Amino acid sequence: MNKYKVKIIPENIEVQVEENKTLMEVFAENGIEFDFPCGGVGKCKKCKVKIIGKDGAEEEVLACSTKVKGDLIVDTSKKEQKHLILIEGVSRQIKANPSIKKVYVELPNPTLEDHRSDWTRLKESLGYKDGRTSLGLLQELPKKLRGSNFKITAVVVGDEVLGVESGDTSDKLLGMAVDIGTTTIVGYLMDLNTGQELTHVSSLNPQTKYGADVVTRITFASHEKDGLLKLHEEVINEINDLIVKATKQVGYKPEDIYALTIVGNTTMHHLFLKIHPEYVAKAPYVPVVKEPVIVDAKELKITINEVGKVFVLPNIAGFVGADTVGAALAAEMDRGDKLRLLIDIGTNGEIVLGTAERLLACSTAAGPAFEGARITCGMRGAEGAIDHVYLGEEYKYTVIGGDLPRGICGSGLLDVIAGLLEVGIIDRNGKLLPPDQITNELGKKYRDRIVQQDGSWSFVLEENTATGQPVYITQKDIRELQLAKGAIAAGIEILLEAYGAKVEDISEVLLAGAFGNYLTPRSACKIGLIPPELESKIKGIGNAAGVGAKIALLSAEEYQRAVELSQQIQYIELCAVKEFPEVFAKKLKF
Amino acid sequence: MNKYKVKIIPENIEVQVEENKTLMEVFAENGIEFDFPCGGVGKCKKCKVKIIGKDGAEEEVLACSTKVKGDLIVDTSKKEQKHLILIEGVSRQIKANPSIKKVYVELPNPTLEDHRSDWTRLKESLGYKDGRTSLGLLQELPKKLRGSNFKITAVVVGDEVLGVESGDTSDKLLGMAVDIGTTTIVGYLMDLNTGQELTHVSSLNPQTKYGADVVTRITFASHEKDGLLKLHEEVINEINDLIVKATKQVGYKPEDIYALTIVGNTTMHHLFLKIHPEYVAKAPYVPVVKEPVIVDAKELKITINEVGKVFVLPNIAGFVGADTVGAALAAEMDRGDKLRLLIDIGTNGEIVLGTAERLLACSTAAGPAFEGARITCGMRGAEGAIDHVYLGEEYKYTVIGGDLPRGICGSGLLDVIAGLLEVGIIDRNGKLLPPDQITNELGKKYRDRIVQQDGSWSFVLEENTATGQPVYITQKDIRELQLAKGAIAAGIEILLEAYGAKVEDISEVLLAGAFGNYLTPRSACKIGLIPPELESKIKGIGNAAGVGAKIALLSAEEYQRAVELSQQIQYIELCAVKEFPEVFAKKLKF
Repeated sequence: MNKYKVKIIPENIEVQVEENKTLMEVFAENGIEFDFPCGGVGKCKKCKVKIIGKDGAEEEVLACSTKVKGDLIVDTSKKEQKHLILIEGVSRQIKANPSIKKVYVELPNPTLEDHRSDWTRLKESLGYKDGRTSLGLLQELPKKLRGSNFKITAVVVGDEVLGVESGDTSDKLLGMAVDIGTTTIVGYLMDLNTGQELTHVSSLNPQTKYGADVVTRITFASHEKDGLLKLHEEVINEINDLIVKATKQVGYKPEDIYALTIVGNTTMHHLFLKIHPEYVAKAPYVPVVKEPVIVDAKELKITINEVGKVFVLPNIAGFVGADTVGAALAAEMDRGDKLRLLIDIGTNGEIVLGTAERLLACSTAAGPAFEGARITCGMRGAEGAIDHVYLGEEYKYTVIGGDLPRGICGSGLLDVIAGLLEVGIIDRNGKLLPPDQITNELGKKYRDRIVQQDGSWSFVLEENTATGQPVYITQKDIRELQLAKGAIAAGIEILLEAYGAKVEDISEVLLAGAFGNYLTPRSACKIGLIPPELESKIKGIGNAAGVGAKIALLSAEEYQRAVELSQQIQYIELCAVKEFPEVFAKKLKF
Repeated sequence: MNKYKVKIIPENIEVQVEENKTLMEVFAENGIEFDFPCGGVGKCKKCKVKIIGKDGAEEEVLACSTKVKGDLIVDTSKKEQKHLILIEGVSRQIKANPSIKKVYVELPNPTLEDHRSDWTRLKESLGYKDGRTSLGLLQELPKKLRGSNFKITAVVVGDEVLGVESGDTSDKLLGMAVDIGTTTIVGYLMDLNTGQELTHVSSLNPQTKYGADVVTRITFASHEKDGLLKLHEEVINEINDLIVKATKQVGYKPEDIYALTIVGNTTMHHLFLKIHPEYVAKAPYVPVVKEPVIVDAKELKITINEVGKVFVLPNIAGFVGADTVGAALAAEMDRGDKLRLLIDIGTNGEIVLGTAERLLACSTAAGPAFEGARITCGMRGAEGAIDHVYLGEEYKYTVIGGDLPRGICGSGLLDVIAGLLEVGIIDRNGKLLPPDQITNELGKKYRDRIVQQDGSWSFVLEENTATGQPVYITQKDIRELQLAKGAIAAGIEILLEAYGAKVEDISEVLLAGAFGNYLTPRSACKIGLIPPELESKIKGIGNAAGVGAKIALLSAEEYQRAVELSQQIQYIELCAVKEFPEVFAKKLKF
């Protein structure tokens, strides 16, 4: 038998191949990963490669059915480029392989000799041995097949056929990754074929009108008539609105969306699924479900394609939810042997510590100080917020949007308090000193900003503001921040202890979320939110939960990895740790 | 380590066992089949056995947790007896192991140390690694668990949890096997724990008002407004009525039923599932689905327990349906190396021929003659039907119910025609001879029963009838019967030829259905419906399709076997067999 030289690029592999082997066989035998969605029967036309003959002639062929008849070069790059997607923020490249797929097939017409049933014909043409489907699909199958002369596009998940569309519609396959924050909902509209983000949209979580944080929402769900139903419908309707808005922006329709991935904290997760979160808020704080939930969009009244599915990421515990799993996935916490720390700071600070070998997590009741809540002049990191402050020889600050300030957000608060500590205006216990007790030379420069209000001292940041009222921080604000930073710092210490590691063993500190992204590492370390030894190792990774949702949407393997992460991460309930109160008390100090 | 002598009865196995081994380990190591529904963790209390100590003291213990501490005898018979069920009609013993099960479990309460989610807690207590469930169950789970102090009964199929009930309800687990005949629907109400038939109920298929046979019903579905929906709703409503009737008879409620199995011909199957049977009736006669369909009872509006499932048996082809699969299952056509022939005679005669190695099937358009339809004085095998006739020196006949006759049913018709052939009143071509052409001495005795009506000859069976009108058969009736028997006889011949076997290779002829059960084998052979060589090998097996449905209901393995049978049986489309018209013409003769 003749043998020929086949060179595969860009892999740059050269092999001797027997005559008449198909390129599919060549790839399989040489460990080259390549998808054959229809099982290699020449139906889906998805396995196109470029071959370059000895004479330099180029031709586009199907790898499944093309036989080797002479020396040649096979260029698989067209395929590969299409599959690799760069995920920004976490700088990851992933291979697009969504859980939900479309496969175009042309079925042979039934004859007296080939009298397979409609469903057998379809599943066998898709290359499935044991295919699964719904009664609904069977009911519409005969008309669908005959109405399109047996040329159809199947919408599939694994070997389950969800739907059948007339003709070739395989280019229309969108998905949306949804991050349900307690305050904000963000939706990323993705093309599942190309992996490209088409647009993203966001809005206020309409549940906020029933309570600002998860505990008040759980109370509402428990005590108001139809409370759970109301909160559930609010979030569903808002997501449906975001779907309409996003698809409209880029010239698609909601029915072009076939999959949603969902991340959110455990309470948001439960409310989205109309599962009562009552017991999340009561000791021992157990969620109803932590496993991944995959559900028909129709069942949740999510208005995407009628056969669309919703893939909800798994939770870890009552206060470590699918958002943390998403962030851990984005940050690849399950890879590498260097100890890393991931902190997602919001009302709760979720902390994950570990390596590929072992991962621990806990949740700390940080309170909403970092989000600007319960702070006298606090506000979210929006236009008008003082986001950075510098107390040096010169006094400097920046305002989001650049106009006159309206208040101060988390990162600004952190800077001020760190600065006041540095210049000796706040002592280690968090006491704001009266002007006459300040001894630090630099601190003395700021004495006239310290004013008494209602018998307690405050520090004025700016009197000339957009509201006409000065922006300042009070002794009470400092106490709020102490509670928040103490909780997180204690969580870090308890996790390190449980892990059996020391601060200096940590190679990287990943901060997720808006606050984490905008804070000044030096300030975070100065106040002891993060151990000072780690200052140079701090890295903001943006909305990592949302990025995790996008990654899980684009790749079935990554969704599965999220499931494994949720099982792998060992949850430590701080309430059950005897030393916690002591460590917390210690960490309250600056 | 000490070793003890353990004798297991009734298996009568004696083994040496190391001290402290559990009986579960002993059973596993010695190949003794024994179920541990909760995985052997002591929760379900279903693995009770009797142990008899050296001193003769008897005790009932759990096999999963009882350790061997001395010589003993283990009696597993209580368990075994409960599991083995004798299925009458086909004389089969099967092990009750229904697809749907109930498992009572007592879950540990959540604590700060054991903070598993509700669902993790449940699935792990059931011994499932990857359990599955529905969103609906998750939504009700927290209240269900806490409302019953974490003592619940799970309704499961494999590792899928369908429902959760408070406390121990494991003794209430009914199922119904439903045989949807074109004319009659029969429901067998079974206790899935004991395998006992509690009662059976039947009624006229209400679809008959839209057409007597499958073809007229398909026409109705295709041409009438909402025709499919009407036919579908009729059968669903009738089954729901049968469910109410049957459960009432034995003091249960419809919600005590958790599973239905369904058999029926392909058209009945499709109408039950609201799948259009249009293409079953058009060449090349393909069904929409032949695979097994398992669907929530709720989706079909079948009013059993709200988590109940419907297990529809698979089809083989457009005219060989789930009823034939059920009959083949009941008759164990997939066992043995002796060639057997299974015939289910109705409007169509479905024929299966083969051994465990190879099975062939075909469907013959026998027409409804054997059911008494299109026969002048024909009627179904009900009260008043002449069911057996003997034309000897003395003229004898029997009537169902014993009163005056109202008409003649299939088995009676067969006897008359066989008798008339024997006494020379009908010739080999099927011609009813005028009185003056009869030469046979016995035949001459019956001359005065041959009368002319509308220019054609008839044979009068009885003038003194319940209706006041004579019961007789006409030349046309004989032609109808010839068509019916010719079709089946041709089918048998074609199958034998395809199989490469001869008539004399057949070891057994199994006749399913009422007609098959009541016919006189000698008559069937005399007219050539069945080759005469096989007369002594004919065996009626009753409503084998219904028996198959019962077996599949009681045992998940048997349901799976039905699925395999449907794949194993190779369908031969007689329309595609070139020789068929010729063989059929030959078989029309007596």
